[in-house]
This record gives sequence, structure tokens and C-alpha cells, in this order.
Amino acid sequence: MPSKVGKYTIQFQTNPAVLGFASVVGKKESEGPYGNSFDQCHNDTTLGQQSWEKAESQLQNEAVHLALKKANFQSSDIDFIFAGDLLNQCISSTFGLRSLNIPFLGQYGACSTMAQTLGIASLFVESGAAVRTAAVTSSHFCSAERQFRYPLEYGGQRTPTAQWTATAAGAVILGSRSQYKTAPVGLQAATFGRITDYGIKDVSNMGAAMAPAAANTLLDFFNDTGTNPQDYDLILTGDLGYIGSQLLDDIMKRDGKDIHTVHNDCGKMIYDRKKQDVHAGGSGCGCSAAILCSPILQQMSTGQLHKVLFIGTGALMSPTSSQQGESIPGVAHLVYLKSQP
Amino acid sequence: MPSKVGKYTIQFQTNPAVLGFASVVGKKESEGPYGNSFDQCHNDTTLGQQSWEKAESQLQNEAVHLALKKANFQSSDIDFIFAGDLLNQCISSTFGLRSLNIPFLGQYGACSTMAQTLGIASLFVESGAAVRTAAVTSSHFCSAERQFRYPLEYGGQRTPTAQWTATAAGAVILGSRSQYKTAPVGLQAATFGRITDYGIKDVSNMGAAMAPAAANTLLDFFNDTGTNPQDYDLILTGDLGYIGSQLLDDIMKRDGKDIHTVHNDCGKMIYDRKKQDVHAGGSGCGCSAAILCSPILQQMSTGQLHKVLFIGTGALMSPTSSQQGESIPGVAHLVYLKSQP
Repeated sequence: MPSKVGKYTIQFQTNPAVLGFASVVGKKESEGPYGNSFDQCHNDTTLGQQSWEKAESQLQNEAVHLALKKANFQSSDIDFIFAGDLLNQCISSTFGLRSLNIPFLGQYGACSTMAQTLGIASLFVESGAAVRTAAVTSSHFCSAERQFRYPLEYGGQRTPTAQWTATAAGAVILGSRSQYKTAPVGLQAATFGRITDYGIKDVSNMGAAMAPAAANTLLDFFNDTGTNPQDYDLILTGDLGYIGSQLLDDIMKRDGKDIHTVHNDCGKMIYDRKKQDVHAGGSGCGCSAAILCSPILQQMSTGQLHKVLFIGTGALMSPTSSQQGESIPGVAHLVYLKSQP
Repeated sequence: MPSKVGKYTIQFQTNPAVLGFASVVGKKESEGPYGNSFDQCHNDTTLGQQSWEKAESQLQNEAVHLALKKANFQSSDIDFIFAGDLLNQCISSTFGLRSLNIPFLGQYGACSTMAQTLGIASLFVESGAAVRTAAVTSSHFCSAERQFRYPLEYGGQRTPTAQWTATAAGAVILGSRSQYKTAPVGLQAATFGRITDYGIKDVSNMGAAMAPAAANTLLDFFNDTGTNPQDYDLILTGDLGYIGSQLLDDIMKRDGKDIHTVHNDCGKMIYDRKKQDVHAGGSGCGCSAAILCSPILQQMSTGQLHKVLFIGTGALMSPTSSQQGESIPGVAHLVYLKSQP
């Protein structure tokens, strides 16, 4: 049974098992440093669909099917699926997953969604409410650009602090530890974050808007568990990019928890900074989902990485709220993944 | 601990307690049949805010504060808050609740969101991950009209099958039964639905798009629990309106579970059909939330109602998906509320 540790952290006693994971990405992501890690790369980022939104749905659908296949399950084996994305009314998830016939619980945490879905899906397994659950998110550069910023045809110039929404999806299948004792990777804890708003209004600088939320959640976790950054092999945020990551490191150092030697960020990892100029790095639910669901979970499965804190960071704004003069509230959710020794 | 009953239903062993509830509505809702039941009625539906979106955030904020106050809690007493709404990127929830400093988990189930948040919030309490949780949703006629349909200034004519988005919010505070033994109302079970799409494309007939999902979830629950409609005092859907409710009754009768003597719908209840012509009834997350959080939970608390199935129904579309020719997928989530004898 789960128990509360400190004020904010849920500790999983049974260590819900990661049974399968998969990632699907677009062309640009396949040309990045982790191009060979992803399960499926699409050179045609329409995925043969008639709109960018349908292409994003397809990304999510393929990620779930691949994760199921790799874990040797069918969709009918999954008790609940937790999914979300950045599009209005989460249509990538609903249209991408409607054919699966799995009880569906839509989640919205902007780019924190992968950590949110993983945390809740783990609790469902841990509590006994489910034997197997799935967590999935996606993003698509072209659907995000036209919804949040400008139509691609406009060719708007991006500022140096802007991040590049990844065309990517990632899915994880989780299972009850009582049935899957030998699965190498499991979930040890989750810390769900509080909304944090420092008044940042620049929608081209999401990293700055989200870094304080990431710091809050990380500090909550360290306080609750009595641990330190050096107790972990990797503290992986997604996606603060270059600017937000530096800010997070600075805030954490100021607060006595220096993370910079173990901290990396999915937005810094997914593209090659020199060869692929995306300014402040990658972003989008799919960015952290694909990095987690390929290099990280692969390295955890083979024992190269043992203790990983995965912190999804989300900017909880909409174009409407920004046009109405609002600041950008941030949120960050943390899950602690551990591989068996 | 929760356990799975049948294929789809989660049974709560501890019967998580309803500790408080509150509703906040606009002028039109205050003039309906349940106008005297709501905790707070606003004659000025701007709530003194500068935009309809900010007004909707305010509705949600007030509903949570009233529910906390009625239950004698402060926001720091709540472990997690589950919230969602119909606006792009769920901004009513994020901006309405950002000042609360409660760990925030955004939910998206369109108009099924109140049942979804209640079900997940109950599981968090039941599992021991939380002592107290909150569930809240909202909708606002004016923010929904301009986002999903036309600007109000356009004065578009509504078809007879159209439903009227309620300006309303409802919030529930849940608590662990071990600490709150005498609370009269509790949660017995939850059945989370699968996405159901019968190919309906008429965005002015949401009731028809959602009725099959409601039927699926209800039939799942009856099959899983071996119970019948007559075992309950009330089967309350929200919000199918007049047309969707008739369709649901027809489908259920065809499938051997005649519900019409115990079935009512929040969309049929919130407005007076004769005096307030809203065509096919009310809709919006806030409609079912306000009806549940006022007349229904009041009647359950005083013993007038004992066994209630509350089924939130959502249409998982966006204006973009409809403009791209997509049909309207539906989903329905059920929670079983029971008052102590």
C-alpha cells in the first residue's frame, strides 16, 4: 500500500513494475543524439495523415501499440490508460486512443503530463485497483506551433529563449509487482507539485516560467525523504531546456541542494545543440516522454542507471490567458524510478 | 484497499467520506428549479472579473473555498486537488486554483470531469496516499460559447438539439473513513469508461454523441456488480439533456436494464423547461457539478436519498477536430455514492 512520506511524497511499498515502454518520433528527433534509441522514427512527419493533429494522434497510437507489443500484451490486458497532450481538449489522446477500448482517464499537466500519468498509473497498480495500466503522452511541432504560436506558413522568427516542440510520443506499461516480480525497473515514489507562479509573462521563455515549480517539487521530495541530490544517478527534468535548467541549478544551489553534477534535461538531450539549432532546447509532452521511454528506461533496464528522479515540468497557460495579460503558472510532478540491483 | 469487481469496476472497501461540498452558479441557474439549493448565486456573471475566462476561474475558486469552509478546513489540510474544465489547457482550473498551494492534478474528461475527479480523488483517499482530497469542476456559458461555438455578439441561432452550457462550479472534499467515521455520505465504487464513438458529427447534438458511452459504462457497472437499476434510488447522468437522456433510456431498455423510473439528468434538472427555454437542456462540467454538490448531496446528507449512481458524460471533441471532419467520441465515468442508513 502507498503511504505518505513527509507532506507531499507518496511512497510505493510494492514498487510497481515497468513492463514495457516505447517511443515514436519525427525526422528532426531521429537526427538528434538519441536517434538510434527510439523505437520508431518517421521521416514523413505527417505520418500519412491529413492534418498535423491527426498525425499527433497517430504518434500516440503507435507508441501505445509498440509498448504493448514489446511487453507482449494486447490492449485488453490493460485496466486503465492515463493520457494527455498539449492540444485543446487533449484531442491527440482521445482520437489516438479511442480504438483501444481501454478505460480512459484524460490528464492535463502541459509538459509535466508524462510524470503525472506515470505517477497516477503507478498508484492505481500499487493500490490494487489495477493489475496493468498504461501512461502515454505526445506532442507535435506543427500542431503545437499553429495552436500556441503562429501558423507555420507565417514563418515567425523565434527568440533565443524559445524552445522547439518535439514531434514525439512515449508510452509506458506498468504492472503489479505481485505478478511481475522480476521486471528490472519499478516506481518507488511520486511527488505531485503545487502550482507555482513567479509572474513570468514571456511565452517564449517557458523554461524560466517552469524552473521555480521544478525547484519546489524537488525540494519537497528531498525534504520529505531526507535524501540529497547525490543519492541519485540522474535527476532528469523535462523540459526546461538550456535556460530553465540553468535557473533550476541556480535555485537549487541557493537552497543548499546542488544538483548540477547529476542533473540533465530532456530538452537539452533530444537535439544536437551545434548541428540542430533549436535555440533554448526541446519541449513538449512528447520530448520528455520519448527521452524517458528510450535512452533512460533502456539504460535502467540494462543496469547502467539505477536511481532516477524524473520531473515533468508544465506551463499551465493558454494563448487566451496570455492574451489577457496573465502570467504563466508552472507545475512539476516527480516520479522516482529505481532498477533492481 | 480498493479491489476490482468484474472487468471495469473499482470497489472501495473503506467508503471514502464526503466531508464537504459546495456550488456556485450564475443568474440563469439561480432562477432555475434548484436556485435555492446552491451555496452562492451571482447575479453578475462576470463575477467582477475582466473576462469570461477569469470569471470562470473565480467560480471554481469560490466553490473550493466554500466547500472547505463548510467542512471547517483550510486549503493546507488538503493533500491533493483534482480539477478540470472545458477551456483550452484547462485554464479555469489552473488560474482558479493556483493560489491554493495544494498539489494539483489536472483532469480532462470534458463534461464527465466531475465524476472522473471524484473517482480518482476517492482512490487516493482509499489507498492511503491521502487523508483529504478535493474534486472540482466548472463551466461558464460565455467562455464556452466563444471558444466552442460563436462569439456572443454574433447572436448565432441555436438548434433544438443544442444544450446550454451552465455557468456553475461544484467542489467536493473527501476524507479517509478511518478519520471521519460518521460522515453520512461515502463513495462505494467507481467505473471509469472506455471511449465510445458511434460516428455522430453534429456538434449541436452532444446528447446523442454521449448517450452510447453512458450506456456502456452503466452496463459495465451492472454487469460487474450483479445489480440492477432498481437497486438504486437515483441514476443521475450529467449532462445528456432531454435528447441524450431519452436515447440512454432507450438503449438501456433494449439491453434489458430499464432505468427510466430511476433516471434523471443534471441537464434536465438545472433549468425550468417551460420558463427558461434552453432547448435540449443544460450542459458543461459545472452543470453536473453544481447539481451534485447541492440538491443531491444535500438530500443524501439528510437521508432523503441513499444510493445514487452519478455518471458524468463527456464529448471528447474540439472545434479543430470537428472542423477536420471527425466524429465526436464520448466517454462516461460512474461513481456510486451511498449514504449511511
